[in-house]
Amino acid sequence: MEIKVVRNILSANEQIAAKNRKLWDEHGVLAVNLMSSPGAGKTSLILQTIRRLRSIMRVAVIEGDIASTLDADKINKEGVRVVQVNTGGSCHLDANMLSLAIDSLPLADIDLLIIENVGNLICPAQFDLGEHKRAMIISCPEGDDKPYKYPLMFTTADVVLVNKIDLLEVLDFNIVALEVAVKGINPQAPIFPLSCKSGEGIEAWVLWLLAERENCKEFYDSL
Amino acid sequence: MEIKVVRNILSANEQIAAKNRKLWDEHGVLAVNLMSSPGAGKTSLILQTIRRLRSIMRVAVIEGDIASTLDADKINKEGVRVVQVNTGGSCHLDANMLSLAIDSLPLADIDLLIIENVGNLICPAQFDLGEHKRAMIISCPEGDDKPYKYPLMFTTADVVLVNKIDLLEVLDFNIVALEVAVKGINPQAPIFPLSCKSGEGIEAWVLWLLAERENCKEFYDSL
Repeated sequence: MEIKVVRNILSANEQIAAKNRKLWDEHGVLAVNLMSSPGAGKTSLILQTIRRLRSIMRVAVIEGDIASTLDADKINKEGVRVVQVNTGGSCHLDANMLSLAIDSLPLADIDLLIIENVGNLICPAQFDLGEHKRAMIISCPEGDDKPYKYPLMFTTADVVLVNKIDLLEVLDFNIVALEVAVKGINPQAPIFPLSCKSGEGIEAWVLWLLAERENCKEFYDSL
Repeated sequence: MEIKVVRNILSANEQIAAKNRKLWDEHGVLAVNLMSSPGAGKTSLILQTIRRLRSIMRVAVIEGDIASTLDADKINKEGVRVVQVNTGGSCHLDANMLSLAIDSLPLADIDLLIIENVGNLICPAQFDLGEHKRAMIISCPEGDDKPYKYPLMFTTADVVLVNKIDLLEVLDFNIVALEVAVKGINPQAPIFPLSCKSGEGIEAWVLWLLAERENCKEFYDSL
């Protein structure tokens, strides 16, 4: 009985996700779902990304949080379009929440839509939002054993960002051990060590986004 | 329909939680539910706690993880009774999982049972396990704004542990701002800054545990 209900929810979610995806495709928007534990640096990464891409790409952001508009306020200060989704207790974004949020965005004027999911290394990975790509952040203070303990998030990511490498000297964090653990369950995803504080390594991530956007554009142009 | 199912699950959970609590009460066990984000230091805190309390108290541990026995292996090396619960994808422990786990523990030989929940700052707070006390860890690298963004966890905690204070010098973390935020939604809970790495501040937490155990004991003796 319980399992049946969960299946129904997920199936409904997938249908709405497909609609979101179709909308984004029609407008040439690259949608990226950004996930991590609380405090791993999602908002900081978005701010760094906006500052590097704003002159060559029209960026918009959807901010998912259980409560508060703290993160949306930070994005808003950058002069970038942002929609705050408060989940009201729910531990993840779902496709329907996204569908309501994108109604208020001018999709024809957006090249890149970054969706900041709720801070949670588990549940968000279970819900397709219709995104083209999934990016995840693991921050060094969380420890290098996390891929073994939270496998779904690491398995379904298209790119793994290792944030807070500025702290490596003072942490017991083995970045090679992390890379081995990630490669073991997800050999395809590139891994980019970076620091949103010092700015080190952000370029590789930004170039990856540009390449993904280019792939999208070629696909749209060929239609 | 969906809401009704969720209510049924929670109501069933509460009934089993009450049974767990009754079992612990009958055997004079103080049960503490320890929660935090991934990598905030739950296992490290348990190891520090065991080393300080083992000579005066019989400690046992239940380890909740989605996958792996990494944490249980660390506890096992300390020669302390430990049961690993793998939730198989679920983002929190529930009362039924606990009920199965405590079946394999000799409750009459245990004074303190520490339950390490799944690393998640959201969902575990929604599920009563029957515990006497809820302890939560917020680690400094996660940021001082977390009480505003994850209010339920902070509101329902009986004690708030601020871990990784050894990193304060290299972080933009304002411990006074965190304390103000916690007090705003949970004025009763004591806040203990500590470092599981340096050992600083662990004593206050251990003394709190001893006092809670003493309260329990007085209650049991009065029955």
